[in-house]
Amino acid sequence: MDEFALIRRYFAPLSPAAEGVVLGIGDDAAILAPPVGYELLMTSDTLVAGRHFPLATAPYDIGWKALAVNLSDLAAMGAEPLWFLLALTLPQPDEAWLAGFADGLGTLARRHGISLVGGDTTRGYLSITITAVGSVPASAALRRDGARPGDLVCVTGTLGDAALGLRLNGFESRAPCAQSEHDLPALRARLDRPTPRIEAGLALRGFASAAIDLSDGLAGDLGHVLAASGVGADLRADALPMSEAFSRQAEAGDRLSLQAAGGDDYELCVCLPPDRLAAARAAIAPLPLTVIGTISAELGLRWHAADSTPLNPELHSYQHFDDRRQAP
Amino acid sequence: MDEFALIRRYFAPLSPAAEGVVLGIGDDAAILAPPVGYELLMTSDTLVAGRHFPLATAPYDIGWKALAVNLSDLAAMGAEPLWFLLALTLPQPDEAWLAGFADGLGTLARRHGISLVGGDTTRGYLSITITAVGSVPASAALRRDGARPGDLVCVTGTLGDAALGLRLNGFESRAPCAQSEHDLPALRARLDRPTPRIEAGLALRGFASAAIDLSDGLAGDLGHVLAASGVGADLRADALPMSEAFSRQAEAGDRLSLQAAGGDDYELCVCLPPDRLAAARAAIAPLPLTVIGTISAELGLRWHAADSTPLNPELHSYQHFDDRRQAP
Repeated sequence: MDEFALIRRYFAPLSPAAEGVVLGIGDDAAILAPPVGYELLMTSDTLVAGRHFPLATAPYDIGWKALAVNLSDLAAMGAEPLWFLLALTLPQPDEAWLAGFADGLGTLARRHGISLVGGDTTRGYLSITITAVGSVPASAALRRDGARPGDLVCVTGTLGDAALGLRLNGFESRAPCAQSEHDLPALRARLDRPTPRIEAGLALRGFASAAIDLSDGLAGDLGHVLAASGVGADLRADALPMSEAFSRQAEAGDRLSLQAAGGDDYELCVCLPPDRLAAARAAIAPLPLTVIGTISAELGLRWHAADSTPLNPELHSYQHFDDRRQAP
Repeated sequence: MDEFALIRRYFAPLSPAAEGVVLGIGDDAAILAPPVGYELLMTSDTLVAGRHFPLATAPYDIGWKALAVNLSDLAAMGAEPLWFLLALTLPQPDEAWLAGFADGLGTLARRHGISLVGGDTTRGYLSITITAVGSVPASAALRRDGARPGDLVCVTGTLGDAALGLRLNGFESRAPCAQSEHDLPALRARLDRPTPRIEAGLALRGFASAAIDLSDGLAGDLGHVLAASGVGADLRADALPMSEAFSRQAEAGDRLSLQAAGGDDYELCVCLPPDRLAAARAAIAPLPLTVIGTISAELGLRWHAADSTPLNPELHSYQHFDDRRQAP
């Protein structure tokens, strides 16, 4: 089957008639009518097989995650998803793989009302680059550079699940009991099918002074906010929110590393003045918003124990071009 | 050197303060203010090492070509370039490679006033995906679906140079004489540093009924126009425009295949009513616009010799997912 037939068959259903799409896939470029009075947000993220997902990952999950990581960037800016382009590099034309991939991609795309408007299909080592476009009312985007001393540092949801899911892949459950039967699949689902916090990002637009999504790990990602804002932060290690599955399955000595440097959480980390906390929590409920620390004028990121004694944990954020975190 | 330092060092100069860029590289997504009254054009193209360029290609040329193929898509729509995102996958952090790549990319970007606004850097097999954004006044974009019976089929520039440059790579010149001393470098430059026909695309907006850029080869690419427009075409094989280097170096029996199916020309193929030809030629001068055939109501693409006898050349357009054209 040739490239064009493949594209038509599996990706055309992801390209429904949608607002602002004058011409979708099938020409040299998509023609798009941007909404008047809004700014556009654009982001590109690449997933490389064996580096950003395990080689044995189901094609459904690969399609889901490739879009989810881009939606997560839009969420961190407080944006409404509009359109995306898919650049797919595949070793060979495998119809079953494409069907599963398009299913995962399409399921998440429909959930957030984002339309496929173009892209490219090439042959090579498996890798997916998605470019996602969203919109915000002019000047309303959440940025990394707005954190101010006195702001609370908060995170949505729970941290560390995906990193623990990756680590436990193929291992026995640590706490085999009735409640923990589903722990490993639940942790693994956080790794394979992350939930982009689009609704939370939209709801936090009026409250957050700065935001970032947690893709590489809290310590590294919050570090970007601190650098962009010219501030520091004091964090409470014991305050990092854990899922029940995580608290049953993670060894005590591993928890902070998994939660602060494990990566792949795709939660939002936001800074906001204390007097906005209650309203922000109400706006994103039932998703929890947990206070984990405070922004300070003193540069740097400092960790503290429950009794306020300083901690010096060895944390490594995920970065490309080094081998501190190996491809799984 | 870590990912962030690499990005800052080599790609920050490609991201100057530019119109419509509220926030460029460095946050979760770029914030862009689209021009009012215009539509946006968006396209993504991937180049995979060894498949879309020879492995020994200079990094400068890889950077140039990765942007050029995307600009060529914008040119085919008649668009003015605005912004681009770069998703770069690299086997290792090689500073000399990055410096050359950014130089080629930046030189072409500055020439067309297009600004880098975001992207991603990952580790893996060498591959580059660029997403380019352009603008046109509302409803003014050139499309594939507007060709009408009676339209002339025209191409800009010359065809076949890049394909011949690839074929002759490492071989002796066929016509060693004073004029031909520079033939091989000239042909090879067409392959390595293609010229996106941005100015021609803008100038043809008022004249062309349909347009496409020639990336995979004339026969296949024009086939997309014919299919989208519901028409056919009769082409004159001897009318395809040749450069002097091509006419000196190409074997007579190879010419049609190189010109009609070789790919990598990045010229524009446009259809237009005969009464607009003179004005269209004047608008893109000194770039030549050559008539190579006529659009017909009869479906299909037919080739003819100079004396109008039908030809049945064996032509294969480049498509991914097959091995008819091997990676060089």
